[in-house]
Amino acid sequence: MNNERARDAAARVGLSLLGEPGDSDLGQLVETYGAPRAVEMIQEQLVPPEISPKAWNLALGRWLPRIAVLESNDQMERAHRAQAHLVLPGDDQWPDSLDDLGPHAPLLLWVRGDAGLLRRAGVVAIVGARAATAYGEFVAADLAGALARSGITVVSGGAYGIDGVAHRAALGVHGRTIAVMAGGVDRFYPAGHAALISQVAREGAVISEVALGVTPSRWRFLARNRLIAALSDATVVVEAGWRSGSLNTAGHAAALGRALGAVPGPVTSPASAGCHRLMREYDAVCITTPDEVRELAGWNAVDDKPAAEKTKGAVSDDAGSIRSRVVDALSMRVARDIDAIARRTGCAIAEVQAAIGLMVLEGVAQTSEEGYVLTVSGKPGRAGS
Amino acid sequence: MNNERARDAAARVGLSLLGEPGDSDLGQLVETYGAPRAVEMIQEQLVPPEISPKAWNLALGRWLPRIAVLESNDQMERAHRAQAHLVLPGDDQWPDSLDDLGPHAPLLLWVRGDAGLLRRAGVVAIVGARAATAYGEFVAADLAGALARSGITVVSGGAYGIDGVAHRAALGVHGRTIAVMAGGVDRFYPAGHAALISQVAREGAVISEVALGVTPSRWRFLARNRLIAALSDATVVVEAGWRSGSLNTAGHAAALGRALGAVPGPVTSPASAGCHRLMREYDAVCITTPDEVRELAGWNAVDDKPAAEKTKGAVSDDAGSIRSRVVDALSMRVARDIDAIARRTGCAIAEVQAAIGLMVLEGVAQTSEEGYVLTVSGKPGRAGS
Repeated sequence: MNNERARDAAARVGLSLLGEPGDSDLGQLVETYGAPRAVEMIQEQLVPPEISPKAWNLALGRWLPRIAVLESNDQMERAHRAQAHLVLPGDDQWPDSLDDLGPHAPLLLWVRGDAGLLRRAGVVAIVGARAATAYGEFVAADLAGALARSGITVVSGGAYGIDGVAHRAALGVHGRTIAVMAGGVDRFYPAGHAALISQVAREGAVISEVALGVTPSRWRFLARNRLIAALSDATVVVEAGWRSGSLNTAGHAAALGRALGAVPGPVTSPASAGCHRLMREYDAVCITTPDEVRELAGWNAVDDKPAAEKTKGAVSDDAGSIRSRVVDALSMRVARDIDAIARRTGCAIAEVQAAIGLMVLEGVAQTSEEGYVLTVSGKPGRAGS
Repeated sequence: MNNERARDAAARVGLSLLGEPGDSDLGQLVETYGAPRAVEMIQEQLVPPEISPKAWNLALGRWLPRIAVLESNDQMERAHRAQAHLVLPGDDQWPDSLDDLGPHAPLLLWVRGDAGLLRRAGVVAIVGARAATAYGEFVAADLAGALARSGITVVSGGAYGIDGVAHRAALGVHGRTIAVMAGGVDRFYPAGHAALISQVAREGAVISEVALGVTPSRWRFLARNRLIAALSDATVVVEAGWRSGSLNTAGHAAALGRALGAVPGPVTSPASAGCHRLMREYDAVCITTPDEVRELAGWNAVDDKPAAEKTKGAVSDDAGSIRSRVVDALSMRVARDIDAIARRTGCAIAEVQAAIGLMVLEGVAQTSEEGYVLTVSGKPGRAGS
């Protein structure tokens, strides 16, 4: 550790004890002057020109009661005891994705476990209600397990319900997982998840922007959610009540321009009401399979087959086979009329008309002067063709 | 019945026996020359300049085997026996919404029951899988019953599963309902729904563009679906398999620029796979309550409370009450800062920050130089506020 980083580290640790997570006055000050100078300005109560005197006075009002922590605190000892590492902006392990938070970005991260995980590409947040149903837990495990198995890092909040299931499923397939804590990384919360979070710390990473020893509070949970959203390429809410905290994570994801998905459920289930709200009000994408999460995040799907196809739909008929014969009979270059398609498929004209009518509506085929051609999206092997 | 209408009627009835539903060559001919002249042109095999000789020959190839029906058929006797009325374009009862189908519009409608229903404003199609689940049937009944009770006409296809439930629920509240048949209106299909469809004919309307005596076929089902979509301001698919015929109805609705909704369900249920597909691929709106159907169709909601709110969410906490206190403390005109809001609400500053952060993300509140103001969408009494 060189001297400059040590000074920066000490200043940031002190400042992290002074303000609450996401304090944008603090963030702006550090961004403009650097952490060591920010410490001096606060200690000397110098008014920075970038901040209005009124806002500065309000901010000092928040910070001054705790100002002694800038001189002396026990964070390094606590970190040593908890085997936590400090990761700062500029460090090799610092996740650049957090910089999208601007002045709300964290000043530092405390990490227990593998800090190298923080920079791995391919990150999905799987979050949801603490009061999850068996259905929600099943879907969360299915999504997190499949994604982690294919090398994607699963981020969540370590809470009961969906969060815990997501971590467990990722650990279960020896995949990568990160738990973002609302309190200090030495305060595994909730207590009932101490064993789970310890395992995440051993096999993945447990991280927090909050000082060691600090207990989580409602405000810190809400602030923590912005880190989950910012760290992830896509956030998927599996189950959430109408006013669930997961909607806050989803709101951060949307505000940051991250992909947002929600898993549908029965409209009769209050635990899915928040997910449906996300689809209706936040334009969240309807997610039903791990591949749809990959598609959401902009990655190539591993397997194009929809889940309902794999589980063998109860509601299917032989229209599928006529359709596939029609697809085979169509060309992307040469237009063929209904008669020609009927001859090639051996289907009745009405059957061909029915199949092709649906395909035109779906954009799989299109009409031309001379008949029908297959579109790019109708090419065999594509999903939905 | 004046002479001109009688001639038009006879010609259209004959032509309806000649072509299959939605035959656009026939539709174009009738649109251009009128039905009586179209009959003569087909009988005399005159090539109309609007249609290419090749298409005309193909069309004649379809029509000529049946050409005798233009001279003589038993439709009027059959209609008399079945107590069916003929409704033609230009008649008072003709639903103008069908004209959006262009050359694919039906030549006529046979109606059993109250033809006056066809022009009533406020029409929603509730459709879905024959192989519906108990969940789907519950939701279909809930939606159709509530909508019909508030004066909306519920259109469906009379099939087993979702369709039948939608009709039954509308009848159950003495509401308006229309069953659109794929075969003749004297052929109640399916046989197991003969009693239900008879009741719809007595208390609502059973309609078809297909000649009396004609049995439904796969092609006619697909063609019938375009009428369901065209007649309705909005189409809602309650349950549908991955390749359900209901997706065809939905495709017609989308192609016609009609509002399209889909009811979510468990991702583990193949009977909901088509609905999720509609949300993902066709931009169908996620529908969970009757009010959301009204919103979809562009009508005022009767009741703004979401279903999950009414059923008392299992996943809620006291954040709701802090939030409502913050809403009360905010003004749409005067900006207030966090301190002022904390004083007015009696909440802790951190609690106010948490609540207002969420509200800003949701667009319910916004920041200004002097503090926070309520936006229009945050006005108390609005959904989600």
